[in-house]
Amino acid sequence: MQETPAIVMIPADAMQEIFTGILLKYGFTQLRALECATIFTDSSLDGIYTHGVNRFPRFIQYIKDGYVIGDATPTLENKFGGIEQWNGNLGPGISNAIYATQLVMKLAEHHGIGCVALRNTNHWMRGGTYGWQAAKAGYVFIGWTNTIANMPAWGAKDAKLGNNPLVMALPYKNEAIVLDMAMSQYSYGSLELSAMKNETLSVFGGFDPEGNLSKDPSVILASNAPIPVGYWKGAGMSLLLDLLATILSGGLSTYELSKKEVEYGLSQVFIAIDISKLGNHSSIAKAVDEILKDYHQSMPLDATKKIVYPGERVLQTRKNNLDKGIPVLKKVCDEINSL
Amino acid sequence: MQETPAIVMIPADAMQEIFTGILLKYGFTQLRALECATIFTDSSLDGIYTHGVNRFPRFIQYIKDGYVIGDATPTLENKFGGIEQWNGNLGPGISNAIYATQLVMKLAEHHGIGCVALRNTNHWMRGGTYGWQAAKAGYVFIGWTNTIANMPAWGAKDAKLGNNPLVMALPYKNEAIVLDMAMSQYSYGSLELSAMKNETLSVFGGFDPEGNLSKDPSVILASNAPIPVGYWKGAGMSLLLDLLATILSGGLSTYELSKKEVEYGLSQVFIAIDISKLGNHSSIAKAVDEILKDYHQSMPLDATKKIVYPGERVLQTRKNNLDKGIPVLKKVCDEINSL
Repeated sequence: MQETPAIVMIPADAMQEIFTGILLKYGFTQLRALECATIFTDSSLDGIYTHGVNRFPRFIQYIKDGYVIGDATPTLENKFGGIEQWNGNLGPGISNAIYATQLVMKLAEHHGIGCVALRNTNHWMRGGTYGWQAAKAGYVFIGWTNTIANMPAWGAKDAKLGNNPLVMALPYKNEAIVLDMAMSQYSYGSLELSAMKNETLSVFGGFDPEGNLSKDPSVILASNAPIPVGYWKGAGMSLLLDLLATILSGGLSTYELSKKEVEYGLSQVFIAIDISKLGNHSSIAKAVDEILKDYHQSMPLDATKKIVYPGERVLQTRKNNLDKGIPVLKKVCDEINSL
Repeated sequence: MQETPAIVMIPADAMQEIFTGILLKYGFTQLRALECATIFTDSSLDGIYTHGVNRFPRFIQYIKDGYVIGDATPTLENKFGGIEQWNGNLGPGISNAIYATQLVMKLAEHHGIGCVALRNTNHWMRGGTYGWQAAKAGYVFIGWTNTIANMPAWGAKDAKLGNNPLVMALPYKNEAIVLDMAMSQYSYGSLELSAMKNETLSVFGGFDPEGNLSKDPSVILASNAPIPVGYWKGAGMSLLLDLLATILSGGLSTYELSKKEVEYGLSQVFIAIDISKLGNHSSIAKAVDEILKDYHQSMPLDATKKIVYPGERVLQTRKNNLDKGIPVLKKVCDEINSL
């Protein structure tokens, strides 16, 4: 049996300061360093370590390698009414996506609904970030990104599809309900985490190299063959998300991205709806409350388990991590200290 | 072993004529009878029998029972820029959804992107219909409907979620690429069809009454517990689709719909984007071609099987059924003749 990996508890303030310091060292402006450091820290606070602290070293590596250009800002390429096409100019995915979310909220304010399609951008890290951003500001949000090919089509051996995460969000009280899901049954981040912890998956997560369904995350990572959410259904949805991201942004598709040595230059879509323009606020809040109340009354198969909605656990994790510090794997900590 | 059920081949023209005649008998105007008859026939032509010919008797029953009001037309309730809220006034779901799709294309033409949210409407039958309608006219389309509760949340016993079908579509050559997926691993229609044919499902489709995963469609139907696409992921998505349909339309949620004796008065969302306003047509067509070409080069696990994209098989089925007639179960045929 493998021993539990060593964990270091790092307070959120300290983490943000460390990240900001490193980003300044790599030529980020004060403002942008703070922006990216905040998002990496907030994602870790919310328990999304795979796209927070665990991913930070790779983000720095991509800056070093020139795939992410620290001071690049997006430029407008095309617009008509409530839709705009922007070029991310290979800036940091986080900064570009925050900017696109701000833009699309303004479009929604003026047109009721808006769409910003962003090409030539980079990994936006935790997709949920932009759902929370828009929903906390009072907007309904639908957004997605393409990725390099990392998942086979249903019935296929070789990875031709991206797992293209999709985000859907709406305001709820002063917080938000946020769905943030990759089109693979498990995200690569969570496969890596489970592999690191030597865990078995609760349901089939992909194929072994012989094409048999497997619950072993290491085997699935080795064969580069996670299964799509709902088999043929998630595969179809992944294909559609890539097609739409590509044609709406005029950017690179999963197919074209996969010709590169690493994943950069992605295509993303941000849609926002200004629900304050539709009916009254209190009736919306009441409807949401009623739906969640009923949902929470589901009878659990396992009486000790509560049925939660997407994003519900996040608030508790955030509180815990604010109180006790963010748990970081010692080896990740060491890696960050060496940057 | 059960014998294969008897099948009758009915030419599309004849089917449409029969449906039109019946609808006229139940008080539909000539125009609306033709519209609904055409969609029921087209869905059957495309092989979506569950929401075509097989569903027609239940549609007539709902008209008889007053859940579907044949001559009702939608009325505008609220609008701002590219978004509009409409009341379907319990008109036929097909007619309301065709109307909403036409409206949203006009909104997209003026604003680049549009959203029509429709409350108090009825089952739209095959969701793909509206994806094909918008995409063949040159628009990107995203739409969904809620349903009564027919699927448990992940980890729950009792059905609190709808399977809330989602449609995504884009133009492709003179046809379309259309994803039309319920949030359950198998739609109720396909569970019923498999049960009727005594088939075993290829993957787990739901639970037996003891809470064990099952591949037996009859058992799953009996326990009213199909599984969500991708387990917790499809459950989360179903919840979000219902929340958004409810707040955007100001209509009834899955929770409220489920208090009624049958499913009527649904909430639906139609989003269209006018891609002719973005970049040039030939570069869009080229990108789509490249993506599909690469996708088709996937190596199949089973060498005899071709990897197809959503909607690809439809064209072949349509051609077959146009040539040879639409295969209809004898018992469905008899039922329709008695209407």
